[in-house]
Amino acid sequence: MTDTGFPGGGLRLFGLIGDPVAQVRACFPATERMRQAGVDAALVPLHVPAGHLPEIIRGLRLIGNVDGLVITVPHKIPMAALVDTVSDRAALVGAINLARRESDGRWHGDIVDGVGFRRALDVMGFDPAGRTAFIVGAGGAGSAVAVELASSGARLRLFDTDLDRAASLARRLRDAGGQVETSLYPDPSGADLVVNATPLGMRPEDPMPIDPALLTSNMTVAEVVMKPPVTAFLRAAQERGCRIQLGEAVLLYQLDAMVAFLLDANGLK
Amino acid sequence: MTDTGFPGGGLRLFGLIGDPVAQVRACFPATERMRQAGVDAALVPLHVPAGHLPEIIRGLRLIGNVDGLVITVPHKIPMAALVDTVSDRAALVGAINLARRESDGRWHGDIVDGVGFRRALDVMGFDPAGRTAFIVGAGGAGSAVAVELASSGARLRLFDTDLDRAASLARRLRDAGGQVETSLYPDPSGADLVVNATPLGMRPEDPMPIDPALLTSNMTVAEVVMKPPVTAFLRAAQERGCRIQLGEAVLLYQLDAMVAFLLDANGLK
Repeated sequence: MTDTGFPGGGLRLFGLIGDPVAQVRACFPATERMRQAGVDAALVPLHVPAGHLPEIIRGLRLIGNVDGLVITVPHKIPMAALVDTVSDRAALVGAINLARRESDGRWHGDIVDGVGFRRALDVMGFDPAGRTAFIVGAGGAGSAVAVELASSGARLRLFDTDLDRAASLARRLRDAGGQVETSLYPDPSGADLVVNATPLGMRPEDPMPIDPALLTSNMTVAEVVMKPPVTAFLRAAQERGCRIQLGEAVLLYQLDAMVAFLLDANGLK
Repeated sequence: MTDTGFPGGGLRLFGLIGDPVAQVRACFPATERMRQAGVDAALVPLHVPAGHLPEIIRGLRLIGNVDGLVITVPHKIPMAALVDTVSDRAALVGAINLARRESDGRWHGDIVDGVGFRRALDVMGFDPAGRTAFIVGAGGAGSAVAVELASSGARLRLFDTDLDRAASLARRLRDAGGQVETSLYPDPSGADLVVNATPLGMRPEDPMPIDPALLTSNMTVAEVVMKPPVTAFLRAAQERGCRIQLGEAVLLYQLDAMVAFLLDANGLK
């Protein structure tokens, strides 16, 4: 029996919280990157039922070697109220997808969903400046994408089945100088970029976020759903001649930002 | 980026709780055994500060993929009150070192410290029946060793700096048919087996649990401290010609019992 080995007693832990969580893909690549950076740490999935978030977070924050969290659906918005400070970007989004313990013991939140999304567009050669983006879903991921695209100079149209949620996001973005309107219907006509920022597509029985008949071949269509890699919506978009961007591209391009943020916890880096 | 890899999103989690916890050695070998058994699971260390045990356990029990716990110092006794049912053995010890979620959602506790300790003595060829054992420490580990040795037919003498704790354990063991007395001083004179069942020896500045000058070469001297492997007390015992049993032997021989118990959680096995 050796003294080392993974996981060992000195392991620093990061949790990826979601409900459900079995579909998440970040744990292995994030753990690999942290260990390659020489930090004895791991990112492990934690299935946190929506109704129990505050009680579970209260417990996790008290565990000495839990240094941070990655946050996915449906916890991104409620988690913003369960940390002590958030970045300006996260305040505008109204949600966080990362949280870490600072050296003074307080917890700080940020959101890098938009960073990964924007970087994936860059790699495809799509520059959002002056283009029109239609975003379905004004939750955590949708808001992060909207903040990033608005600050890149895109004109936005937002739709959410919760009209108030879309209106509230639009108002915050306009206050920050963005060109944003809301839409009463999930109709992307005229947009250059169409984004499904809802979880629709994770389950085979999910309805389409947007009627694919409304997509035209000049549109670039992007997903935030990671699993399955190609949702029914992306497949339909591809059949109509659109360029597509997979949800996992967002994860891939935000991994560096995520790992850098987490390793900044509690003096780890 | 592959879909699999360890840790993946479908991971089942077991936590090893202690304060401190960085010294624990069970995480890696237990995880290896679970994965060899074909279960996508890991045992990870959780640094649970003593004052926050109930709040942290309340949170952990609500996390859907946390299926069980391994419990070390100082949580073995208080944890017995934070599960729904315990084994007969654990009820007698008054402590648990294992807990798991049952298929009905309730949590069940057991203690296998004594099982590993007894098996390690077997391997050394030491039969406790009819022999006298002097045990220092009537906490979780000490009680488990005492229950196992008493049920194996040894005569026990117990010492704890908390005299009431030693007296309470002695009373329970006598009620269950054991030959047990308490000692007012840490004096093992006349014993065949001497057991340090306190955490003393984990830190270099710790005092000796027993004055080594009281050890004689006919004694077998055993530890429950895992790290360092050879404590100052064991080294002193060896210098006085005693046979010694390392704390890690207990871990080694209880790993099978521990992994079998945990994989029985929640229909995992």
